[in-house]
Amino acid sequence: MNNTQQFIQENKQRFLDELIELLKIPSISADTAYTQDVNNAAELIAKYLVEAGADNVEICETEGFPVVYGDKIIDPSKPTVLVYGHYDVQPADPLELWESGPFEPVIKKTEIHPDGAIFARGSADDKGQMFMHVKAFEALNKTNELPCNVKFMIEGEEEIGSPSLVNFVKNNKEKLKNDIILISDTSMISNDQPSISVGLRGLSYVEVEVKGADRDMHSGVYGGAVPNPLNVLAGMIAKLIDEEGKITIPGFYDNVIELSNEERNEMAKIPFSEEDYKKSIGISDVQGEKGYSTIERTSIRPTLDVNGMWGGYIGKGAKTVIPSQAFAKISMRLVPGQKHEDITEKFMNYFPTLAPSSVVVKVTPHHGGKPYILPTDDKGYQAAKKALAQTFEKEALPERAGGSIPIVALFEEELGTKSVLMGFGLNSDVIHSPNEHYGLFNFFKGIETIPYFFKYYTEG
Amino acid sequence: MNNTQQFIQENKQRFLDELIELLKIPSISADTAYTQDVNNAAELIAKYLVEAGADNVEICETEGFPVVYGDKIIDPSKPTVLVYGHYDVQPADPLELWESGPFEPVIKKTEIHPDGAIFARGSADDKGQMFMHVKAFEALNKTNELPCNVKFMIEGEEEIGSPSLVNFVKNNKEKLKNDIILISDTSMISNDQPSISVGLRGLSYVEVEVKGADRDMHSGVYGGAVPNPLNVLAGMIAKLIDEEGKITIPGFYDNVIELSNEERNEMAKIPFSEEDYKKSIGISDVQGEKGYSTIERTSIRPTLDVNGMWGGYIGKGAKTVIPSQAFAKISMRLVPGQKHEDITEKFMNYFPTLAPSSVVVKVTPHHGGKPYILPTDDKGYQAAKKALAQTFEKEALPERAGGSIPIVALFEEELGTKSVLMGFGLNSDVIHSPNEHYGLFNFFKGIETIPYFFKYYTEG
Repeated sequence: MNNTQQFIQENKQRFLDELIELLKIPSISADTAYTQDVNNAAELIAKYLVEAGADNVEICETEGFPVVYGDKIIDPSKPTVLVYGHYDVQPADPLELWESGPFEPVIKKTEIHPDGAIFARGSADDKGQMFMHVKAFEALNKTNELPCNVKFMIEGEEEIGSPSLVNFVKNNKEKLKNDIILISDTSMISNDQPSISVGLRGLSYVEVEVKGADRDMHSGVYGGAVPNPLNVLAGMIAKLIDEEGKITIPGFYDNVIELSNEERNEMAKIPFSEEDYKKSIGISDVQGEKGYSTIERTSIRPTLDVNGMWGGYIGKGAKTVIPSQAFAKISMRLVPGQKHEDITEKFMNYFPTLAPSSVVVKVTPHHGGKPYILPTDDKGYQAAKKALAQTFEKEALPERAGGSIPIVALFEEELGTKSVLMGFGLNSDVIHSPNEHYGLFNFFKGIETIPYFFKYYTEG
Repeated sequence: MNNTQQFIQENKQRFLDELIELLKIPSISADTAYTQDVNNAAELIAKYLVEAGADNVEICETEGFPVVYGDKIIDPSKPTVLVYGHYDVQPADPLELWESGPFEPVIKKTEIHPDGAIFARGSADDKGQMFMHVKAFEALNKTNELPCNVKFMIEGEEEIGSPSLVNFVKNNKEKLKNDIILISDTSMISNDQPSISVGLRGLSYVEVEVKGADRDMHSGVYGGAVPNPLNVLAGMIAKLIDEEGKITIPGFYDNVIELSNEERNEMAKIPFSEEDYKKSIGISDVQGEKGYSTIERTSIRPTLDVNGMWGGYIGKGAKTVIPSQAFAKISMRLVPGQKHEDITEKFMNYFPTLAPSSVVVKVTPHHGGKPYILPTDDKGYQAAKKALAQTFEKEALPERAGGSIPIVALFEEELGTKSVLMGFGLNSDVIHSPNEHYGLFNFFKGIETIPYFFKYYTEG
């Protein structure tokens, strides 16, 4: 792998420049105003794959945004690694909180990133991490050190729940045939403590509407006698979580796979300072489900959060109105054992029962995702562990990630293979938030590490 | 009054055309984008007053929008009636629910208004009702049948709590000197059952903010351990009203003047069909404070409503974010005995105590208004009763209005005179809502009735 590593060292600046071009594209899949930009991002990925030396590069149409495919089959008898990533990004709002334009990448030094970090929406989630694989592949390829077959599947709908990828995978099982799937779309503990995500939370995302009168009403003329959808919705949301921090949906915890004390003790070994954690996000206190630590609350326990809520007069000044409708977007993170279809159904059955007879409640499911677990004795996990030990000179720790990559569970179902989540981001990258950034150290370390994964997986 | 009434009959169409011109001006005082329009409305009122024959017409500057003044002093020994009204209007949103442009007046027949009603923002609240006085005055004036002195004080900030009128009144006590104040800015029971508002609810309006982390967070990475301002705010709002429909703010009801059973029995005589009420606004059930009727809940009891709430991602699609902040506009309607300064203070002391230690709560008072009562033996009330009996050929009933005209209590304090609330609107006019309208029957009946008020007040 020496030539590969040398190639990487000699091309760092170009790799970075190419990433910056990709980050300039506002490929926001959630907002139809950016449809052209999302497609442009797909075009650029395809171009980069071709330049990296991939064969059969193709922009595969789907019901939604396209999947970019490319591969390099050096020897059918060798194992095949399928690299998955996504080129779409989260919406950038609230824009006013960005210190620089979300799609005008700038490199700035930070306390955690003395070598500098690249600030832009998608820098860490997932353009920056996905692009590491393209460049690692290029380095292996150009130096003829590629030890196995490689396939790329880069999608453009991950941030909206990968609605089209399901059918794409079902309809292209032969094309996507692989021995292991490699993904960098998660974070590690810190820059001197690598970790591998062995679990992902699932997701159930719904939108709710509470309707009162058939029009907005004057709060003086009608106040006191007619249902106020905002007061009602607030009350309903308040009832979803009890004083103990437990979610009140009947049967919500039924299938949750509890961790053994041994497993929980293992988790407790992960270096973590609650003070630093609170300081890093500017809160005076943590909160959550009683009986669990902060790390457990954000990884092995299911949660419920209101992601957005609106209704009535939200402009300047005061308007004395009782709104006709109130809305909220509510999502639940699920853990192994829970099925998102089941949880969504339980929510849809339960939520309307929290309303008084004076209003009409509507619940619309958005999208869901299955939880996932990777056993630490898996060949892919072992290869990632060796690769990280090689470049970080430190033993990687297994970690449960709080986020969701719904598609991972689907891959296992449809393609029959496991996914290795070797993420190089940090929680402090503030993905999904203003000023998202990705450390240059992490970007290059990822490019250096990935070739070793190919090596050890092929050897192992 | 025969010539006056004849003059009115002969000029109906012109009166209507002039009102339509006034309604075309989007004089929204709450939104600075309409500052010029609000001032244009003041100009037009002044022009109409001059044409009606008023003397000393003046556009009086204030710290905010101007007050239009005009008078006619026929004989200092005669009583002086001060007419109050406002030319500003509520914001028109949600625009998409208007069947015709809010500032493009159209006349349409409705079930309640077979003669037609004029649809436009401000048609009933208060341009249409205020303009009846200008035209009644014109009729009396042009026919030399004006029996007393008249003064006009038409303001442009009523919909935002009349912030500047307070000082204007304090600084112009001599100019505004009067024996009785006449206001048409309320509604009556129905077109065949006139009523006079003998009470108004006060108002306390606040804006609240709940702040969690110092930035929006990824709900997967942080969900379960960090405070979600939307969940927290929903829970706090839910705690403001208990299961009995009582407001939980300590001391909130301390000074409420309860009505005697005799008074409540009087109120119960007001013709009212709960079924029609529910049907008229499209709700399946009413709700509110236990132990009180719908009429009582909307008139003699204080209330609390969320007028607007927002936070997180409210765009299209799904965004898995835990917002940094959540906001709500909350208003409380007050009844005689309650002081808005006191209630606002009690809210500001209580609301933050409902929050967990993990968030920061901020409460900003918007504006307030005092409740008001007019005794039915008042000379002004008697004059209004006789005037209505003359034109409706039916006895008017005393009624408590649920809305607030904060300035009325101030008039009594600063000018020492009572206000007679002789409103000609209907609850079905949907003021403050899309498709606000005002019946032509009501508009002309008001113009016909007002001269008799002047007559009976002068004689009485």
